[in-house]
Amino acid sequence: MQGKFSRPIEVPIALGERSYGILIGEHLLDDATSFDDLPQAQSALIVSNSVVAPIYLERLAAALQRRYRRVLSVQLRDGEQYKNWASLDLIFEALLAAECDRKTVLFALGGGVVGDITGFAAASYMRGVPFVQVPTTLLAQVDSSVGGKTAINHPRGKNMIGAFYQPARVIADIDTLQTLPPREVAAGLAEVIKYGPIADLQFLDWLEAHLDELKGLDPQALTHAIKRSCEIKASVVAQDERESGLRAILNFGHTFGHAIETGLGYGEWLHGEAVGCGMVMAADLSARLGLIPPEFANRLTSLIDRAGLPIKGPALGVDRYLELMRVDKKSEGGEIRFVVLTRPGRAAVQSAPDKLVSEVIAAHTV
Amino acid sequence: MQGKFSRPIEVPIALGERSYGILIGEHLLDDATSFDDLPQAQSALIVSNSVVAPIYLERLAAALQRRYRRVLSVQLRDGEQYKNWASLDLIFEALLAAECDRKTVLFALGGGVVGDITGFAAASYMRGVPFVQVPTTLLAQVDSSVGGKTAINHPRGKNMIGAFYQPARVIADIDTLQTLPPREVAAGLAEVIKYGPIADLQFLDWLEAHLDELKGLDPQALTHAIKRSCEIKASVVAQDERESGLRAILNFGHTFGHAIETGLGYGEWLHGEAVGCGMVMAADLSARLGLIPPEFANRLTSLIDRAGLPIKGPALGVDRYLELMRVDKKSEGGEIRFVVLTRPGRAAVQSAPDKLVSEVIAAHTV
Repeated sequence: MQGKFSRPIEVPIALGERSYGILIGEHLLDDATSFDDLPQAQSALIVSNSVVAPIYLERLAAALQRRYRRVLSVQLRDGEQYKNWASLDLIFEALLAAECDRKTVLFALGGGVVGDITGFAAASYMRGVPFVQVPTTLLAQVDSSVGGKTAINHPRGKNMIGAFYQPARVIADIDTLQTLPPREVAAGLAEVIKYGPIADLQFLDWLEAHLDELKGLDPQALTHAIKRSCEIKASVVAQDERESGLRAILNFGHTFGHAIETGLGYGEWLHGEAVGCGMVMAADLSARLGLIPPEFANRLTSLIDRAGLPIKGPALGVDRYLELMRVDKKSEGGEIRFVVLTRPGRAAVQSAPDKLVSEVIAAHTV
Repeated sequence: MQGKFSRPIEVPIALGERSYGILIGEHLLDDATSFDDLPQAQSALIVSNSVVAPIYLERLAAALQRRYRRVLSVQLRDGEQYKNWASLDLIFEALLAAECDRKTVLFALGGGVVGDITGFAAASYMRGVPFVQVPTTLLAQVDSSVGGKTAINHPRGKNMIGAFYQPARVIADIDTLQTLPPREVAAGLAEVIKYGPIADLQFLDWLEAHLDELKGLDPQALTHAIKRSCEIKASVVAQDERESGLRAILNFGHTFGHAIETGLGYGEWLHGEAVGCGMVMAADLSARLGLIPPEFANRLTSLIDRAGLPIKGPALGVDRYLELMRVDKKSEGGEIRFVVLTRPGRAAVQSAPDKLVSEVIAAHTV
């Protein structure tokens, strides 16, 4: 690394032969050493979108040109509403038109949408090529780029089509967060905040104390928040890569959140905004189930509010919420299953009576 | 099993926690014991097509109804030209419309196209649900249902989008072969014949001696041919599940064959027909490379001819063949790679001079 920047932190993800590292630091995007020891190939394809490409594409491409003979790129349209088959096929078209072989390495340069689509493209192109996550949003750096969940949306449900497919590396350059609009920062904070109530109360205390620095994009605060988030996620994923149990707790707030996103139409709310509001609902549900004190739910709601996230859901109607949640991937035999807090700092998946869920929805929608 | 039928043979596929068995025998389709110990679920979805469903759907559904609370079905259009995203999405639509959860078991009832699409649907629906292959064509029973290769075609290339995803079981009911048209039987024989020159000269001798019984659909001959084919495939797949090396030899004849299929448009020739003709070309290429005696190539060509398969490719033009082969998944850095016979009974992947390949194409096209 150049002397003027501190060395990057590396958080390891221990998954046997699918293990990899998350690099977190400044100035990583165009530092050739960030790409050391990645798989050899003739070609690399950078997938980004119309917002990210103008700012970062050239820098990443220049770094990769030192390593790959051909560096290609494809740009998707920006937004959750384009996390679909048409965008996926743009990637396949680019790969096939350039006769890319099955050693080609894909680079996902962008937020969670770009990462999820690119990961699924890598999982499926010629039945699997390597890929690298280069997340440029806070949400992607702390959550979606880590752990190998890839997917596209289906008109009937979010993330319904995808694969568990691990990247070869995650390169989280915190410099890229400086260009994020405040709404995107808040959306990312939702997934950061999530790790407190489900796994680490000390981290929750730290977040309450440092929220303003995070909103102000202070590099030191960001580095700590990203590192701690990735460590918690890495530990959960290492125990349950394919979500047969424990891993589902990372979806705290997501059952309600996905209903909001699907109900409004993708792209209306940011994913993190829906998760923020979903956590308010899930915490209240946990309190109504008698698992946590109402004060803890209120404490969480305040933090979510302070982060600049919505704490009231859209007025879709209680029945529509229930219908949307029934197609959630955690559902079994038509029964909705929620991630609830079993006590402050711990979470588990369980079902809840429709009546209680309806009360929660009624209490937290406009 | 009922007393009047012999017990089914089981060929094991040893892949650690992804191990499974291939059941081969008569009267398996509606025998409840064929489905013993499959994953528990509320729902099963049978995927078949407009040709297979009228003959076998009801029988399979009746057997599954003893095991699953809901047995759903979806029918695809018949033919390689429908091995595409639109057919895949019909499966997702059926699953999502019925709110199928991620324990749902998919059953692929049909030939290679149904098996490949259903397998990829199972790999991708909610990032992976279990599936069972119930192959009803000879080609699917000896080749495509075994080993976990799943895919759909892309307009720019065959099997370009897919996954390595193993079924929970393969149920090869040889009774279903009795309704196959002769052209489909011949197409299946292409993949049976393949195993001789690449792995087992004794089996090649046996095939030459028993070809007429196989064409006449004699159950004993069929059972032996399917069993031996699956054993050879199982042994290769167990050594190299994700085709990093050895497994590619199972694609003997396929590089030329895929060019024929893509060049003519999917569905014009059956896959097995293209592979039969492709083996004639690949054997001749091996002879011209000095690896095998021309007599062995001729011996193979005779057997392919006797099986009722085409031994002359369509007149696409040499340049078009070369262009089509350059996007083959075995290509690396723009160089076409072929499965050649390194000696009778052994195969390997290597490149060959364009000039030699052109001569081969010119010699074996109409």
